[in-house]
Amino acid sequence: MLIKIVGLHAPNAPRLRALLGPAHDVRALEAFPKEGPIRADVVISNSIGADEATRLDCRLVHVPGAGSEQIACEALPAGTTVCNVHGHEVPIAEFTLHAILEHVVQLWQYPAHLDAQAWATAYANRPQHEEAHGKTLAIVGFGHIGQEIARRAKALGMHVLAITRSGKPGTAAELADEFVAVSALDDVLSRAQALVLCCPLDDNTRGLIGARQLALLPANALLVNVARAEVVNEQALYEALRDRRLGRAVLDVWYQYPKKGEPPVSPSRWPLHELPNVRATPHISAMTPALLERRYSFMAQNILRLQQGQALLNVIHPTR
Amino acid sequence: MLIKIVGLHAPNAPRLRALLGPAHDVRALEAFPKEGPIRADVVISNSIGADEATRLDCRLVHVPGAGSEQIACEALPAGTTVCNVHGHEVPIAEFTLHAILEHVVQLWQYPAHLDAQAWATAYANRPQHEEAHGKTLAIVGFGHIGQEIARRAKALGMHVLAITRSGKPGTAAELADEFVAVSALDDVLSRAQALVLCCPLDDNTRGLIGARQLALLPANALLVNVARAEVVNEQALYEALRDRRLGRAVLDVWYQYPKKGEPPVSPSRWPLHELPNVRATPHISAMTPALLERRYSFMAQNILRLQQGQALLNVIHPTR
Repeated sequence: MLIKIVGLHAPNAPRLRALLGPAHDVRALEAFPKEGPIRADVVISNSIGADEATRLDCRLVHVPGAGSEQIACEALPAGTTVCNVHGHEVPIAEFTLHAILEHVVQLWQYPAHLDAQAWATAYANRPQHEEAHGKTLAIVGFGHIGQEIARRAKALGMHVLAITRSGKPGTAAELADEFVAVSALDDVLSRAQALVLCCPLDDNTRGLIGARQLALLPANALLVNVARAEVVNEQALYEALRDRRLGRAVLDVWYQYPKKGEPPVSPSRWPLHELPNVRATPHISAMTPALLERRYSFMAQNILRLQQGQALLNVIHPTR
Repeated sequence: MLIKIVGLHAPNAPRLRALLGPAHDVRALEAFPKEGPIRADVVISNSIGADEATRLDCRLVHVPGAGSEQIACEALPAGTTVCNVHGHEVPIAEFTLHAILEHVVQLWQYPAHLDAQAWATAYANRPQHEEAHGKTLAIVGFGHIGQEIARRAKALGMHVLAITRSGKPGTAAELADEFVAVSALDDVLSRAQALVLCCPLDDNTRGLIGARQLALLPANALLVNVARAEVVNEQALYEALRDRRLGRAVLDVWYQYPKKGEPPVSPSRWPLHELPNVRATPHISAMTPALLERRYSFMAQNILRLQQGQALLNVIHPTR
């Protein structure tokens, strides 16, 4: 099989080569060619524009992650299957739990340097922090990531609201205390001391959290966004954090991304990342060695299934 | 009933008064009188020296926390009962889980200020962090605190070793993957990527973790001490951290405590609290409003039991 890994993931070609063995031809490309057909059995890339899609001549496009909003699926030739891969739910859930615990344990209120004087003062004053236990967590999107977050939050004794399209308990009913339809989101936000976004970005979720939703959250609420930035209205988020109507935000996903060959851009058009109550991380919540191991093992398995004519796993296009 | 709250907890007298109502006489004392008998029905204090103990004339000494190593029980007159109170296991478990997640998520490796240039660099390099999932956590002491830590660590997918006196699975057998006798501690330390201390301080645990034990831990291990400082040899801990044989320590308990009327002291005779791989917190892991609510509710309940001649809860002396 001829496999082309294109773009951001090109440096992982040796990993895939090691998994597939010498019978497969794995090539790393920094970018797609500017013109002409792009021929391969498999293309691995997390970004395929419409023009590139029309020039693809391959059987399988494997997104090396979960999000496929940068793949112009509708422009792909008939007969091209698109698969994605998960495995990020574990590190993203850990990142999110860290954000929740950081928000309640509030280590920033203790002296950075515990010398004798600071120790005497802090010990006499005994400043208090909060507990996650007993607090309410609303999770928007209850797929792989949302469920793993819920599993850990339940162990902390949090009250979990799962916000889903239908609001009906699905296969993971035991992981949430309540299921709420996204259409009724506004009715429950006043109870959500923490709001975690881990839904796909689509027409239903773009701008889902706006000024009205942020205003409904209780005082000192925490927002964690590990979905896509555009689920939250950018200006409304900035203003709510700046004015402390929203207590704190941990943002791992952004409104503007660096592009090769273009000048650097700020992560947000508003200076969100400069606010003291924002933790701004560069889209790293899932970035662990274990993640890449899980993902490339899965993609190698899918490539072998393609070769052997078996049904592919995690097909996202054409929709079945 | 006449109740005297003495020392550090004296400011909580109004809280107890509100719980017990006007029929009880709750008095706040900054310190015990220097001489003469100390008469009350109940004394609440977390420190009673031998001289003070012999002068006590009361039925119940209620420690307003779990640790009783500062109560000279053996010097108390016959007929004095000592009780303690828990309720701290929830915030201490959350503090500990935060420490574990902080150690693996490693947010310190990302730019503190995510401006356009930092964003471009970080996004291109995609630095990786670790996962708690699949790692081994050794918990020394499997009482209230150890079990609550284990419950949360299991939800993270950690492999939990419970280190107890007997090494036999007790009532919480499902919360640990293995039970290990403290006498066999050295045999399992090389597997413990995180080591949490939450045992009582006594003759069996003083200095339990010395240079040899620290050397057995794997590279980049995390030590969390929420027990008492003296469970770990002070010099050995300093040297292991300074030389990076131990990856990181989160220390909430210390070798020297501030004393009223005496000059400030450093938390450690060694400059432990100055090392970059130490998070030094001023004994605050349990300090939440919810903790005080739980503890004073419990003590009020025990005082009413004493008044009504019912068996007291959480009696720790005389040992039954």
